[in-house]
Amino acid sequence: MAGAAGGGGGGCVTLRGSQFQDLLDAKHNVLFDCDGVIWNGETAVTGAPEVVSLLKQRGKRVFFVTNNCTRPRESYVQKFSRLGFTDVAEEEIFSSAYCSAAYLRDVARVQGKVYVIGCSGVVRELQDAGVHVVEDVGGDEPGTNISNCPLDPDVKAVLVGYDENFTFMKLAKACCYLRNSECLFLATDPDPWHPLRGGRITPGSGSLTAALETASSRKATVIGKPGRFMFECIASQFDLDPARSLMVGDRLETDILFGSNCGLSTMLTLTGVSTMEEAQKYKDSESPEHKGCVPDYVVESIADFLEALEE
Amino acid sequence: MAGAAGGGGGGCVTLRGSQFQDLLDAKHNVLFDCDGVIWNGETAVTGAPEVVSLLKQRGKRVFFVTNNCTRPRESYVQKFSRLGFTDVAEEEIFSSAYCSAAYLRDVARVQGKVYVIGCSGVVRELQDAGVHVVEDVGGDEPGTNISNCPLDPDVKAVLVGYDENFTFMKLAKACCYLRNSECLFLATDPDPWHPLRGGRITPGSGSLTAALETASSRKATVIGKPGRFMFECIASQFDLDPARSLMVGDRLETDILFGSNCGLSTMLTLTGVSTMEEAQKYKDSESPEHKGCVPDYVVESIADFLEALEE
Repeated sequence: MAGAAGGGGGGCVTLRGSQFQDLLDAKHNVLFDCDGVIWNGETAVTGAPEVVSLLKQRGKRVFFVTNNCTRPRESYVQKFSRLGFTDVAEEEIFSSAYCSAAYLRDVARVQGKVYVIGCSGVVRELQDAGVHVVEDVGGDEPGTNISNCPLDPDVKAVLVGYDENFTFMKLAKACCYLRNSECLFLATDPDPWHPLRGGRITPGSGSLTAALETASSRKATVIGKPGRFMFECIASQFDLDPARSLMVGDRLETDILFGSNCGLSTMLTLTGVSTMEEAQKYKDSESPEHKGCVPDYVVESIADFLEALEE
Repeated sequence: MAGAAGGGGGGCVTLRGSQFQDLLDAKHNVLFDCDGVIWNGETAVTGAPEVVSLLKQRGKRVFFVTNNCTRPRESYVQKFSRLGFTDVAEEEIFSSAYCSAAYLRDVARVQGKVYVIGCSGVVRELQDAGVHVVEDVGGDEPGTNISNCPLDPDVKAVLVGYDENFTFMKLAKACCYLRNSECLFLATDPDPWHPLRGGRITPGSGSLTAALETASSRKATVIGKPGRFMFECIASQFDLDPARSLMVGDRLETDILFGSNCGLSTMLTLTGVSTMEEAQKYKDSESPEHKGCVPDYVVESIADFLEALEE
C-alpha cells in the first residue's frame, strides 16, 4: 500500500484491517491532537488510553500537540493520569502555551517583558521558560482609563491566547504596546472558537487575536497549528523524520493542514469538530489551498487503532 | 472647472481662490464627518462654527455624518452648542448609532430583541426608534459562565459598536446568539481604531466586530461609512442629489471611500487621521480598489472654506 508508506495522497481513505497494519509499520511517530481526539472535556475517548499504551509497547513514539493554551504541561500530565492514561510524560506534551514560551525564549530571544492576554497556562509556561511576564489581572485603579493607564516601557512583546477575562482595557493596552513597531506580536493559536458541551461554543484565541490585529493594523505571528513551529519544536528535541510521522486530529483546518504543512501523513478522527462531509468537500474542491485540508486517512475514532495493535 | 461641477476625478486637487468658489456654486449639500474634521475631542477646529453658519446662510444644506456611535443625537446637539456651533439641528446629525436603529426598524424590520454590544449612545438610539434592546451591563450572577449563562430566546439580532465595557462574556454570548442563522448580525461601523490625545489610540467598533466575526464564522452587515447606507438614510429624508453633494472627511478609507461609493464629490481635510502622503499613495496605486480612497480635493482645514464664503 503505497499510501501508507509515503503519505496517503490526500485520499480520505477509510482504513481497513491490513491497511491499518501497513500504516503502523510505516510510521515511527504518532502525533495526537487532544480535544476531540483523545478526550472530550473530562471524558477520555473510549479506548484512547489503551491505544496510547499499545503504540508505546510497539516501540512507537507518541506526542500530544494541542492548540489549547489554558493549562501548563504539568497540569496536562495530571489530566492524562486522571482520565486513565498511565504512561504519558510531560516531555511528550506540546501545547501552544509551551511552544509560545519556547519561541519567545529561543527564536525571538525577547529582551524585556511580555504583555500577556491569556490564562494561567500561558503565564505559567512563560515563567517556567524564564520569560518576564506582565500579567494583566484587571486590577486597574478607579478612574483609570485607556488615556491615562500606566504602560510598562519594558514591554517588548505582546502574546494573545484564550482569555476568559479578556476586556476592552486589555485590548486597548496591547494596542498601545504594538504602536511600537519593534514590539513583537504573537498569538498562541488561530482557533476561532471551541465547542462546549450542550451545543454552545466559546470564542477562541483567534477571535481575540483578530480584534487586536484590526485595532493595531498588524498581523500576529501565530505559534499553534496549522503553522509549522510546533512540529519544529518537537523535531528539535526528538529528531523526528516527517516521512515516518503521522498526525491524528479532529479539525481539518488546524490539525490536518498542520500535518500537510509539515510533510506528515494525516488522519482525521470523527470524534471531534470536523465531519466526513467537510473532508469530502475539501477533497472535491479545485482550490489549491484546500488540498492541505484533505486528510490521507479517516477513522471513526482512534479506537480503530486497537484492532491493528492487538493482533 | 469641470472637476468642481461633476466630481474632481480623484485628483487630490488643492483648491485655490476661484476654484473653491466654483465648487461651492456647484454643490448644494455639504456632508461633514465630525471627529478630525469639525472638532478634535472637545475642541472645535478653528473657524469650523463660522464655516457651518456661512454655508447655511448661502443656502447650502449641511449634514453631519459620523461613525462615532457613543452619543445619541440629542447629546450631539449639546456638544455642537458647547463648542460654538449655534445652528445645528438634531435632524442634520446622522450617527452610525442613529442609522443602525433606522436600519433595524425600517430595513430589517426586526421582530424581537436586539442584543447590543455598545455604549449608551447605541442603546438610546435603538430605544428611541422603538427597537427592543437587550443591554448587557455585565451583572452576571456569581458562578455564571459561558456554559450556563441564560440566553434570551427572543434575541433576533446582534449589534456591535464601540464598547469600553466589552468583555469575553459579551463576546461569547453574542457568539451563541449568532449560532442561529436567522439572527441578524450588524455592526455600527468598521473603524479599526481611534486616535486619543497624547498619541495613544483606542480600539474601534471594527476591532470588536472582527473578534465576533471570527468566533461566529459570520460576516457583519456594517452600517457606517464607507458603506452606502448612511447616505441612503439622509437621502430618504432630504431628497439629496449625489451629484450636487460634497463629502468632507479626514479618513481616506472611511469618509472618502464613502463619498466615492455614493457618487459624491470628496474632500480630504488634514486636521485628522489621514495625510496628504497617504492620499498621494492611493492616487499612485494601480489597484482599482484604491481609486475610491483618492479624494477629489484636499484642504488643510475646513477653515479654508472661509475665504470663499466671506467674499
